[in-house]
Amino acid sequence: MEDGRTGAGGTREERSGAPPSPAAALPGLDDQQLGVLRQIGRAWQEVADTPEAWRRALPVDPDQGTFPPASQVRPTGLFRHVRVAGMGGTGAETLRRAELPPTGPGRLGYRARRLLLGAPLRSTALVRERMRKLLALPVLSADALSSVAYGPEAMLAVLILAGTVGLSYSLPIAATIALMMLTVGLAYRQTIRAYPHGGGAYTVAGDNLGRRPGLVAAAGLMTDYILTVAVSVSAGTAAVTSVVPALAPASVPLGVGVIALLLAGNLRGIRQAGALFALPTYAFVVAMFALIGAGVVDAAGQGFSPTPAPQPPVVESVGVLLVMRAFASGSTAMTGVEAISNAVPVFQPVEWRNARTTLTWMIGILVVLFSGLVVLIHFNGVTPTPHQTVLSQLARGTFGSGWMYVFVQASTAAVLLLAANTAFNDFPRVLSLLARDRYAPKTFLRMGDRLAYSNGIILLSTAAVIIYVVFNGDTTSLIPVYAVGVFLAFTLSQTGMVVHWWRRRTDRWRRSLTVNAAGAVLSAVVLVTAAVTKFTAGAWVAMLTVGLLVLVATRIRRHYKAVDTALRLHPHAIELPRDATPASVRPTVSGAERGQPRKGAHAVRPVFPQPRGEEKEETPEEIHHLTVVPVETMHLASMRALAYAASLQQPVLALHVSPTDAEAQRFRGYWTQWGGHLPLEVVVSPYRVIIAPLVNYIEALHRQRPDLTLTIILPEIVVRHWRHRFLHGHTAARLRRAFRPLAKVVVTTVPFHV
Amino acid sequence: MEDGRTGAGGTREERSGAPPSPAAALPGLDDQQLGVLRQIGRAWQEVADTPEAWRRALPVDPDQGTFPPASQVRPTGLFRHVRVAGMGGTGAETLRRAELPPTGPGRLGYRARRLLLGAPLRSTALVRERMRKLLALPVLSADALSSVAYGPEAMLAVLILAGTVGLSYSLPIAATIALMMLTVGLAYRQTIRAYPHGGGAYTVAGDNLGRRPGLVAAAGLMTDYILTVAVSVSAGTAAVTSVVPALAPASVPLGVGVIALLLAGNLRGIRQAGALFALPTYAFVVAMFALIGAGVVDAAGQGFSPTPAPQPPVVESVGVLLVMRAFASGSTAMTGVEAISNAVPVFQPVEWRNARTTLTWMIGILVVLFSGLVVLIHFNGVTPTPHQTVLSQLARGTFGSGWMYVFVQASTAAVLLLAANTAFNDFPRVLSLLARDRYAPKTFLRMGDRLAYSNGIILLSTAAVIIYVVFNGDTTSLIPVYAVGVFLAFTLSQTGMVVHWWRRRTDRWRRSLTVNAAGAVLSAVVLVTAAVTKFTAGAWVAMLTVGLLVLVATRIRRHYKAVDTALRLHPHAIELPRDATPASVRPTVSGAERGQPRKGAHAVRPVFPQPRGEEKEETPEEIHHLTVVPVETMHLASMRALAYAASLQQPVLALHVSPTDAEAQRFRGYWTQWGGHLPLEVVVSPYRVIIAPLVNYIEALHRQRPDLTLTIILPEIVVRHWRHRFLHGHTAARLRRAFRPLAKVVVTTVPFHV
Repeated sequence: MEDGRTGAGGTREERSGAPPSPAAALPGLDDQQLGVLRQIGRAWQEVADTPEAWRRALPVDPDQGTFPPASQVRPTGLFRHVRVAGMGGTGAETLRRAELPPTGPGRLGYRARRLLLGAPLRSTALVRERMRKLLALPVLSADALSSVAYGPEAMLAVLILAGTVGLSYSLPIAATIALMMLTVGLAYRQTIRAYPHGGGAYTVAGDNLGRRPGLVAAAGLMTDYILTVAVSVSAGTAAVTSVVPALAPASVPLGVGVIALLLAGNLRGIRQAGALFALPTYAFVVAMFALIGAGVVDAAGQGFSPTPAPQPPVVESVGVLLVMRAFASGSTAMTGVEAISNAVPVFQPVEWRNARTTLTWMIGILVVLFSGLVVLIHFNGVTPTPHQTVLSQLARGTFGSGWMYVFVQASTAAVLLLAANTAFNDFPRVLSLLARDRYAPKTFLRMGDRLAYSNGIILLSTAAVIIYVVFNGDTTSLIPVYAVGVFLAFTLSQTGMVVHWWRRRTDRWRRSLTVNAAGAVLSAVVLVTAAVTKFTAGAWVAMLTVGLLVLVATRIRRHYKAVDTALRLHPHAIELPRDATPASVRPTVSGAERGQPRKGAHAVRPVFPQPRGEEKEETPEEIHHLTVVPVETMHLASMRALAYAASLQQPVLALHVSPTDAEAQRFRGYWTQWGGHLPLEVVVSPYRVIIAPLVNYIEALHRQRPDLTLTIILPEIVVRHWRHRFLHGHTAARLRRAFRPLAKVVVTTVPFHV
Repeated sequence: MEDGRTGAGGTREERSGAPPSPAAALPGLDDQQLGVLRQIGRAWQEVADTPEAWRRALPVDPDQGTFPPASQVRPTGLFRHVRVAGMGGTGAETLRRAELPPTGPGRLGYRARRLLLGAPLRSTALVRERMRKLLALPVLSADALSSVAYGPEAMLAVLILAGTVGLSYSLPIAATIALMMLTVGLAYRQTIRAYPHGGGAYTVAGDNLGRRPGLVAAAGLMTDYILTVAVSVSAGTAAVTSVVPALAPASVPLGVGVIALLLAGNLRGIRQAGALFALPTYAFVVAMFALIGAGVVDAAGQGFSPTPAPQPPVVESVGVLLVMRAFASGSTAMTGVEAISNAVPVFQPVEWRNARTTLTWMIGILVVLFSGLVVLIHFNGVTPTPHQTVLSQLARGTFGSGWMYVFVQASTAAVLLLAANTAFNDFPRVLSLLARDRYAPKTFLRMGDRLAYSNGIILLSTAAVIIYVVFNGDTTSLIPVYAVGVFLAFTLSQTGMVVHWWRRRTDRWRRSLTVNAAGAVLSAVVLVTAAVTKFTAGAWVAMLTVGLLVLVATRIRRHYKAVDTALRLHPHAIELPRDATPASVRPTVSGAERGQPRKGAHAVRPVFPQPRGEEKEETPEEIHHLTVVPVETMHLASMRALAYAASLQQPVLALHVSPTDAEAQRFRGYWTQWGGHLPLEVVVSPYRVIIAPLVNYIEALHRQRPDLTLTIILPEIVVRHWRHRFLHGHTAARLRRAFRPLAKVVVTTVPFHV
């Protein structure tokens, strides 16, 4: 937004966290560019002293209607009806066909894709439905609430290292975390008020702290989303294997399969709405409340005297470091609380007010679930074991192995799956925002035909699978990596809010600033704690990832900036051909010069300036052509290429590369038989190479006359079946690649269909 | 040869088994084609009533000297010196650079390749040196002689299934095999006389029995060569692991490593000559003679009474089937005897006489080694064991574990390595002959810059590694697959010789015919025996491979024939545009028609006949152009494409694809600002796709005016670093692929270098 672009990229809607519109990839022109555009246009006008062919009438009626033709559109969709002139009704067919890659395996893949993903969706399907609070609550809080499935266990897994003494610290640490939840929740209420269009960490930090902190926040968020998938899937798998221990050895492939399913579903364009998505969260909340309720009744029956935990072996003594590590691990129960503040626009009006209410409900439920579970664990003396989750032990202890136990486990697995799915919505969205701001490859801005950011989804799945497999699908190992990214984003977002209030000083800003400052400080404490105490345990992975993401994003932006500058209609681009190069320097070609080497003449000719850097723009009349046709043998494909070249009405030179002198002589014979209508040059290449001599020759031509635009006409044999493709040399494709870096060389392929 | 081609493909040298020359891929023109060529030439002449631009002078001096420029050639090579006009001396640099793939990883790969393979070699380095008999003997007989390292063992491995009774059959079976060796050897003496230019099975069977049997023989040979590599490497590895049992568990990766080394060495262009290659064979022969001599002395000391073999468990009873299986397995000791008859031209004059003498020596040594080893095994009571080869047991029993034992094993491993290397010379040669005759992809005809048929070498290595790994590097499992291919080729080759003598009836033909007939019958007996008795043990793999190779080769030839017919300068190709399409049908385009839909006009226009099938050739004046420029946004790259399009002096139509109507409106605004110099058509594509609407539009244009040649001008952004490539959409490449199947559509890429 800071780079002064106008048009689609700069609306208010765009600047907030909403995903960019399809047109965002096409930046508009600013006034300077428009000026240059007009100037270039005038240059085209001025030289038009004689009517040129390209100014004459078109031989066709260009109005081919719309795409796809109205007649082809299924009647379900709203569609602008446009006159379709002179067209066979094959638009939808063409859409299907043109998307088909021409190769056989590709076509197979395409069909598989359609089967898996369904038919393309129109852009207008993007309009998202508004959600009632009771629907938004489960959908948006799945990530946060599901965290209690692993948060308490992660805390206990650290404390148990110090034995029974360590475990006694669980209640005070949990109380601190609950306090943090309330604070951060309050802080996000301020964010919702300030950013009613959606206040993601990238937006808030970027708006208030600057581009770089915003980028760091985005990198932290992206790392967080990758880990959300990995941790949720691993915890979900653990919930399942706790019930069915026989599946335990297959937990890694199981988890990978779940991620693959999420990938397929999201490529198909699952929306994060609907009752289906509300069910698991409510089921989980019900299950947890039942568990806590039953636990409290049991505890009351025992007179609230805790069952002593089994004596675990003492590995470490209790110290500040251990307590801090437990605190950092337990804080993962807070991950996901930012979801509602990102998604304010999905609420019904008044959006921000409804969002705040929903956030309050969510924080309330979260605090109750988290505290309740920790207290219950304490009373029941449950400790983490390798083969069963703490939650599973608790449920089994409370309900036995009956259907209530299975319900608890199933709803836990379901809500964790839903939490992982949330990341599939959020990661590509953040990535598309980065791409809109040129921090990520453009391709992440491209919506697939199912309106999903397919490339972002694939990237997330790949990263999640890698980290899941590397950490062997083990929740305990993944937790230390998790916290850093989340709390980095929290800290930057809250700090951004502090700056926001300080700058605006609107109504009640002092109170808001205080709350956000508290949130920022607490988040920063967790961030530093996690980074320091768990650096070697895995936090370094997250920190490295964030660093690399920031680095790569910065370099990508730099590259795009450079390309934009190079492509911009800047005044310098049209200066030289009109003023700096006087007409006298441009050589006139006459028949008398034919065949005479003009060594003296081209010695004084100016060398083409920076062949790859600043190529100057020219008007059509300033372009001087030479057409070069490499001919392998005299067959119909070469004849067609030669005829095409000659029909361009520019000087043509045919080029033949021979492995031997004898072959060269033979070819010259054929050329003479044909009539020798065009100048022919034979290059003998004793190394059997074809590409190198051609490139060499073309370069020499360019050095001889840098002002000429050389058009290379390549005949290309096109076969019908992909399996025949490998039977033909890919000379045309290889030549195209070889000529690509050359200055002022245009490559034309004349197909010959067999 | 039967397809009536003249020129490089048809010389006597070519028709024999010698590898085809570099020019073989370029077939000459026959008289009919030359006639058509002249006719096309006249058509170009006739229409030249006005001097066209392409007939005028060239703006450049086309004489750019030779490639690479003489100044750049290293003084060691003989080189034709040609005047180099106006060229910077960068030829060799260009050779290097132009061969460099433009991408970074590709460049790295290129450098690794140069390091591994060395600098390019000139074609003239192909002239092969002649070999003295004493050098040719070891080089050409490594394959045959090394077979005794696994042949006897393979025989015993079958016999031992019937216990001691079975083993007693070893001497008579070995005697039969020795007799066969002599007969086949005699038979190949006849082949050498008849084919002094080299008589491989493909050549002999193809010449005398017809194209299809020749192809079957070639398929058998190729299967054989793949198995020669696999079996030799596995037997060589076994020779090594017999000495160092600790290496035994690593035998599969060890073997794969050896094949990889052979691959690298042969890509570098190892010649199968030189003292280095003679050494292992002589060492092996010396070692074997020493072993047999010492064994005979030992046996004499014991009064020639055999040591009884340990009582093996009896699994099968002795029967005809078992004996025949043992016979077929033992016959693998004969593999490789055809090598000398393939390579007659490498001998010093008189070639065939020297080759015959060498063959006689080889057969003599082979029979002595084979018989001696079998007798020695019998006397010493040695039987196959899993962990030590029979040869190793024999050597250890005779020499103890001292240096002589190590020498025997080392020379065995070395000669087996050399035998495997022989296949690396022969397989690509046979494949290149097939490619010359259009039975294999052209690419196998292409010699790499180290004068090696790189693609054939890579194919062989891949196939050998696959079969080696699938059979777990176990010689005993591989043997049943081996014999079928060899004896298929032997049988067809010898049958071909019978036909040869019968047709020619030259001097002493009766005797030669009898000898070859005997060879053919005996080979056929082994072939049938092997195919029947070992079908389930692995022979089916070889038979399936041969069948598939023949099938694929036939289809490849059919495809090439079809393409040749389509590309041929046939009279039909020029008929239509000159006579069948009267000038009145071709529409004249006037300015008045601009913007008016000509529905009525194009209703009567003839539909373009078979868009992909028979496209007719045209003279330059008969080609009518329409240039289409897809424009994404107004930047310098599009401006350049537009200027280039207009400079072609043909009607130009600009095309813009918009995701929304708003964007379309915005773009039209920019177009007006520029001056609207060219007609613009905006296609709104609500599915966010770009390729499909463009293809659809172009197809509609083609339907509207099938006589027009549509030239699509695509601006393409070319970045300097490969790592930046993925940051830019590959729209140009994707459009090129999408347009490729369309009739009369030419694609031009105008690069813009950033």
